[in-house]
Amino acid sequence: MSRYFTEANSDEIVNARMGEAVPPRLRQVMAALVRHLHAFAKEVELTEAEWAFGIDFLTKAGQMCSEERQEFILLSDVLGLSMLVDAINHRRPAGATENTVLGPFHVAGAPLRAMGERITLDGQGETCLYTGRVVDLRDAPIAGARIDVWSDNAEGFYSVQQPGLQDKWNNRGVFVTGADGKYDFIGIKPVSYPIPDDGPVGKMLAALGRHPKRPAHMHFMITAPGYQRLVTHTFVGDDPWLDSDAVLGVKATLIAPFEPAEDGRTSWRSPFDFVLTPSG
Amino acid sequence: MSRYFTEANSDEIVNARMGEAVPPRLRQVMAALVRHLHAFAKEVELTEAEWAFGIDFLTKAGQMCSEERQEFILLSDVLGLSMLVDAINHRRPAGATENTVLGPFHVAGAPLRAMGERITLDGQGETCLYTGRVVDLRDAPIAGARIDVWSDNAEGFYSVQQPGLQDKWNNRGVFVTGADGKYDFIGIKPVSYPIPDDGPVGKMLAALGRHPKRPAHMHFMITAPGYQRLVTHTFVGDDPWLDSDAVLGVKATLIAPFEPAEDGRTSWRSPFDFVLTPSG
Repeated sequence: MSRYFTEANSDEIVNARMGEAVPPRLRQVMAALVRHLHAFAKEVELTEAEWAFGIDFLTKAGQMCSEERQEFILLSDVLGLSMLVDAINHRRPAGATENTVLGPFHVAGAPLRAMGERITLDGQGETCLYTGRVVDLRDAPIAGARIDVWSDNAEGFYSVQQPGLQDKWNNRGVFVTGADGKYDFIGIKPVSYPIPDDGPVGKMLAALGRHPKRPAHMHFMITAPGYQRLVTHTFVGDDPWLDSDAVLGVKATLIAPFEPAEDGRTSWRSPFDFVLTPSG
Repeated sequence: MSRYFTEANSDEIVNARMGEAVPPRLRQVMAALVRHLHAFAKEVELTEAEWAFGIDFLTKAGQMCSEERQEFILLSDVLGLSMLVDAINHRRPAGATENTVLGPFHVAGAPLRAMGERITLDGQGETCLYTGRVVDLRDAPIAGARIDVWSDNAEGFYSVQQPGLQDKWNNRGVFVTGADGKYDFIGIKPVSYPIPDDGPVGKMLAALGRHPKRPAHMHFMITAPGYQRLVTHTFVGDDPWLDSDAVLGVKATLIAPFEPAEDGRTSWRSPFDFVLTPSG
């Protein structure tokens, strides 16, 4: 290899510059990043104008970031990278409930509620009974599973997006299973909503002919001693955006039934069993 | 292909979301970007902590950007991407002088000077006579070639980095060739200097066991009607950082002789001929 830069050796010469003391994992990740970055530029023969556009895009994305807004996570989300990293790090055996992205709206410390209680505090939206079991891979109930749930309100906003307008714990709660592994609580049938699209990522979506909508979903984070943490959603099966979630969060196994309820307590009923994977 | 996200189809499903009206070139570039990004994450099995580190790095780089500082260009430079894009877009026939990166310190509008004049206004540094010819691929002189030159001063700073301390046109000038294609001017033997390393990119370089130094070089931008614009440097051949330029800017053909001058007018003499490529 030439000691100096050539188009042919471009990635090798960058990676050859790394010092001998670089930790093996950092070396591996950076070398792969440089190799794939250069392969991309070579494959498309990136023009100088396109390169400059990319620099400007990253700069604008960086300047959009604040305490309340993370444009690079949004970018990762719409490019499917967030889902991919989640998938790589949470491979599960067949039959186990799959992960999907945590999203930016989880708040730790939601009130612990008794089974059957209501999490919707604003009285808005179509009521829905969420019910099912937390079980292991052999369908045995898991006692003491902590189920942290959250959703948007009937207008498509999470409580943290409307601090003056919504109670902090509106449509949020924590439930703990008993010996039968069963859970049930009353929330709303969630509604679809757009991810923030007033920044560079929103412009990118528009240029790519993509919409910013997420299909309606209820968030679940389930932990139990001896089992892997499950971070997932259940999706409303008839949502029109199910096939085109802006952040690619939908997995076929996470689409849940939302049926008209027959007991008159709620308008809807959504039965779903969660199957946890043993840890370690 | 599944309609929903799986680890296996992760890049295909993102790219399948693009609308039908997306212009072909945008479609090509974005599809390749997504494909290479996902291939990178899969190859290294990127962890969630590494992903979060990357998001934080990009955010900090964005917040470092200002009117005076472009951290993403710096990132592109140290990853060899700037040189690669330059190489892809300025392939030249054998014998033609090669391009290298423009860098951030060019200023348009430098004073037009007569051949033989001095560009160093502060009287500092080791004087050097730059001399040679601008020719075509058949070694015929090119008349009317406009040679825009610039370098750092003896302390390693470009005039624009020290607006109060240096004259704006210190170590800058424009020369136009006559019928013989010859040029000569007096500047200094330039010195090596570090790229700005007080931001995220500097931290990255340190983590990779790389230094921020650029080997000493004189900048040339040469234009002539009927020829491709040449943006290049000549490098001081005995510079200790020649093999490890932080921005990978050195090409073997751009290393110039810097010899002790014998006529007493200057301390050094650097002969170099520039071979322009016909445009179109």
